[in-house]
Amino acid sequence: MKSLNERSADIVEAMAADAEILGLEVHRLACGATWIDAGIEAEGSLEAGRLFALACLGGWGELSFWKVDLEEARWPALAVTLPHPVKLCIGCQYAGWEVKVVEEEDKTWRAMGSGPARMLGSSEPVLDRLQLRERSRRAVIALETRAFPDDSVAEFLAERCSISPGGLSMLVAPTASVVGSVQIAARMVETGIHKMIELGLPVDAVLTASGTCPVAPVAADDLTAMGRTNDAVLYGGTAWYALRGDDEAIAAVAERLVSSCSVDYGRPFLEIFQEYDRDFYKIDPMLFSPAEVFVNNVLSGRTFHVGKTRGDLLARSWFL
Amino acid sequence: MKSLNERSADIVEAMAADAEILGLEVHRLACGATWIDAGIEAEGSLEAGRLFALACLGGWGELSFWKVDLEEARWPALAVTLPHPVKLCIGCQYAGWEVKVVEEEDKTWRAMGSGPARMLGSSEPVLDRLQLRERSRRAVIALETRAFPDDSVAEFLAERCSISPGGLSMLVAPTASVVGSVQIAARMVETGIHKMIELGLPVDAVLTASGTCPVAPVAADDLTAMGRTNDAVLYGGTAWYALRGDDEAIAAVAERLVSSCSVDYGRPFLEIFQEYDRDFYKIDPMLFSPAEVFVNNVLSGRTFHVGKTRGDLLARSWFL
Amino acid sequence: MKSLNERSADIVEAMAADAEILGLEVHRLACGATWIDAGIEAEGSLEAGRLFALACLGGWGELSFWKVDLEEARWPALAVTLPHPVKLCIGCQYAGWEVKVVEEEDKTWRAMGSGPARMLGSSEPVLDRLQLRERSRRAVIALETRAFPDDSVAEFLAERCSISPGGLSMLVAPTASVVGSVQIAARMVETGIHKMIELGLPVDAVLTASGTCPVAPVAADDLTAMGRTNDAVLYGGTAWYALRGDDEAIAAVAERLVSSCSVDYGRPFLEIFQEYDRDFYKIDPMLFSPAEVFVNNVLSGRTFHVGKTRGDLLARSWFL
Repeated sequence: MKSLNERSADIVEAMAADAEILGLEVHRLACGATWIDAGIEAEGSLEAGRLFALACLGGWGELSFWKVDLEEARWPALAVTLPHPVKLCIGCQYAGWEVKVVEEEDKTWRAMGSGPARMLGSSEPVLDRLQLRERSRRAVIALETRAFPDDSVAEFLAERCSISPGGLSMLVAPTASVVGSVQIAARMVETGIHKMIELGLPVDAVLTASGTCPVAPVAADDLTAMGRTNDAVLYGGTAWYALRGDDEAIAAVAERLVSSCSVDYGRPFLEIFQEYDRDFYKIDPMLFSPAEVFVNNVLSGRTFHVGKTRGDLLARSWFL
Repeated sequence: MKSLNERSADIVEAMAADAEILGLEVHRLACGATWIDAGIEAEGSLEAGRLFALACLGGWGELSFWKVDLEEARWPALAVTLPHPVKLCIGCQYAGWEVKVVEEEDKTWRAMGSGPARMLGSSEPVLDRLQLRERSRRAVIALETRAFPDDSVAEFLAERCSISPGGLSMLVAPTASVVGSVQIAARMVETGIHKMIELGLPVDAVLTASGTCPVAPVAADDLTAMGRTNDAVLYGGTAWYALRGDDEAIAAVAERLVSSCSVDYGRPFLEIFQEYDRDFYKIDPMLFSPAEVFVNNVLSGRTFHVGKTRGDLLARSWFL
Repeated sequence: MKSLNERSADIVEAMAADAEILGLEVHRLACGATWIDAGIEAEGSLEAGRLFALACLGGWGELSFWKVDLEEARWPALAVTLPHPVKLCIGCQYAGWEVKVVEEEDKTWRAMGSGPARMLGSSEPVLDRLQLRERSRRAVIALETRAFPDDSVAEFLAERCSISPGGLSMLVAPTASVVGSVQIAARMVETGIHKMIELGLPVDAVLTASGTCPVAPVAADDLTAMGRTNDAVLYGGTAWYALRGDDEAIAAVAERLVSSCSVDYGRPFLEIFQEYDRDFYKIDPMLFSPAEVFVNNVLSGRTFHVGKTRGDLLARSWFL
C-alpha cells in the first residue's frame, strides 16, 4: 500500500497543477522543496481548504461540504468520514509538531506542524507509543502560520524526516483565511480522539468515525480567527465513533468527552482566551472537544450520546 | 459500456488494494476466487461500507455521508442518488439470491446474495421478467453472513454465473458490523422500488431516484442488528422517485408505498420479529418500505408525498 | 492548466461513454459536432443533471446531492461549492448567450446558451469587461430548449467559437426534465454573483462561494417547469460568499441581495409571470436572487446575513 505521505504528496501535486483556479500560489525553494501558499498572499477557496485538509489526513477520508442550521440560518459546513481514525487523526492530522527553526538573522521561525510528515520526523511521544511511523521518500507537512517558510525551514524539516529537500512539500495557511477555516473545521473527529487519549480510553480500538462542523467565517486577524475556528469545533462540532470498548469505562468518562464538561464552556473562545491573558496553558484542557459526541461500542451494541451543538453561541460570535 | 459486474469488480480491486486502511481482510481461495471479509474478523469502516454498497449497485450511484437529525441528535446518515434505479436496485442490489451450498461434511452453507452477479447466475423470475441480464467474465456478489465462504461456495457461484472461479469476488459482512449497517442503509431506494413492484406500479418507468437513511448503530449480535438496520429504513429512510406514470394508478396505491401502511408499523422491528416467533414470513410484507416517499410523475408534473420519518422510534431503539 | 472548455469536454466525453445508464442519447451531426440529448427524448437522471451542471461550470466545483427540509418533508437538494466563482459562474455558467440561427426553411432556432463556450464565442460585454476569455480547440455549450440542434446550429456556434465543428459539444435539456431541474438548481451561487454585479459590488473580489438549492419537481410542460425551477432558487436557494470588500458598500446593498427585496416577491414565479403577460422584461429584475445570502468580508471579518428560505411557498407550489 502507498504510504500516507505518498498519498498526501499526490494530492499536493494535484493542488499545484490547479493552483490558479483554486486560489493557491506555488513556490519552489532553492533547496528543491515546494511550498504552497494557501492563504497568506494567496486567496484560497473552500475546495483548496478541502484538499489541504485531505492532505493533512494522509490523503484518506471523505470530506464534503453541505450546511448546518444555525439559529434559522443555513451555514456552510464540512463532513469528515474516516477509516482508521487513529492513524489518520493522531498519526497525520494532529497539529503536534512544534516547528522552531533558528534562522540566519538570529530570529526564530515558529509554526505548529500537522500532516503525515509527523510520522517521519516529529519526536512526539504519542507517535512512538501508538506505533504511528512509516517510511517514505516524500513528506507533506501543513503549517498554520502567516510567515513564509524559507530554505532553512525546509532543510530542517527534510533532515528531520530523513528525506532530501526535493521530496518535501509544505502547505501553509494562516488561521485567518478560507483555507484556515476549512482545515480547522476538519479536525472535529481528531479533537474527540485526542480527548479519548487524555481520558484513558483505548483509541487503537476505534474502528471508524465521522463528524460535521460548520466552517467559521474568515476573520480580519489571526487572533479573532483563532477564536472563531475554535468556536466552530467546541460549539458546532459533532463526532461519531464506533469502537471496541468497555461500557463501564466509556460510561465513567462519557460526560467529559464534550466541551460542555469544561468550567470554561459557554462563552466564545476569544473571550476565554483574553481572560487568561492569551495563555493557552491556563485554559482548561477539557474544553478542547466537539460539542456533541456519539460512541457506539460495537462489543455491547450500546451508544453513548453526550453534549449538543450551540448554534446560539456561534451565531452571536459569527454574524453581524 | 462496461458491464455492471466489471464496474463492481473494479471497485472490489480498489478495496483490496487499500484493505489495510479500510479495515478489510482479503482472502484468496484455492480455486482462484477472492473474498473480502468486511466485518467478520475484519473491523470495517464507514468508507468500506460505502464501497461495499457501491459494488452491490454495479458500481453506479453517488453515495455520500452526512447526518440526519434524530430527536435533537445529529446522527450519521447515507445519501444515495441513482440513475436507472431498476437496473441498479433490482438487477444488482436486491438481496434476492438465496445461496445454499451443501458442503462436504453434510452441512449447508446459506446466505442471502446481492450484487450484479445475480444478473449472471440467479434464477429469480424478476430478473428475466425485467430483462435484467448481462454478460461478463467477472462477477461480484455480496453476502450477508458471519460464515466464511469456502471453495465449494465459490465454485458453486462461479458455475451458476458461467465464469471461472478466478473471476469471482465475494464481499462478506454480517449484519452486526459497521459495513452491515452502511450497506443496509443504502437500500432505502431499493426497498421502495420493490414495494412498487408488489403494488403493480410499472417500475421500468422510473427515471431516477434518491434517498437518505441513517446508519444504524452496530449491535452486539446479528439478531439485534437485524432489528436496528430494518428500523433505519422503516422509520428513518426517505426515498424520492421520478417516473413516467399515471396519476390515478399512483394515487390508488400511494398510501401503501410507506411502512406506515402496515398493521405492524409503529414498534422497533425486533419486537415485531419476536412476536411472530422470529418467522419473517409472518410479518406483514407491506411493512418493508421507506418511512417517507415522494413520487414525481413527470408526465403530469404531480408529486405524491406520503409518510414521514420517525426519529422518536429510532432514538428509543438506538440510544442508551 | 487545462482550459475550462477542455475540462468540460472531458466531462462530456465521460457522459457519452456512460450514456445508457445515465439516461442520455448521444448524436453526431454530419459536420462532426456532438450533441447530447439530456431530456427531450432521453429521460435523464439526477446524476446526468449533476454532470451537465458540472460541464456548464467548466468542469470545476463540488456538486453533491443531499436533502433540505421543506415543511416537514425531506426534499432532494443540490450543494455547489466553487473556487473562483466569477470565472466559473459568469465566464461559464451564466445563460447569457442568446443563440439565434436562421435555418434553411426560413425559421429561426433559438435557445439560451450557457457553459464555457461563451468565453470563446459570445459577444456579451461582461465577458470582455471581466476578462473572461480563453483559447481552446474544443468548446462546450449547454442549451435549454426542446428543439434539436442541427448542423446549421453547430456550424454557427463553431464558427463563433473559432473552432472546427468536430470540437464542439452541445448539451441539451428542456426546462421540464430531470436534468433541467438539477442544472437550474445549480445556479443559486451564480444568481447571487449576478445580483452583485447589478448592485455594483466588485465581484472579481469574490474568493470562493457555496450554496444549496432544492431540486424542483419535474413539470409536465416547460412553462410550469420555468415557474418551479425559478421558485427553487428564489425561495429555496441559499448562497454563501467570501470576498474582499468594503463593509459600507456591502451594508448599503445587503438587503437587496436576496429575492425578498423585490416588489414581486412572495408568490410562485409562474403566477408573477402570468400577471405580467408572460413578459420577462416586465418582472422586477431584483427578484432574480437566492432566498438567503451570506457575505463574509474577509477584510473586516464581518458577515452579512440576509433573507431566509420559504419552504411554505415551495410546498404550496410543488406538492400535491
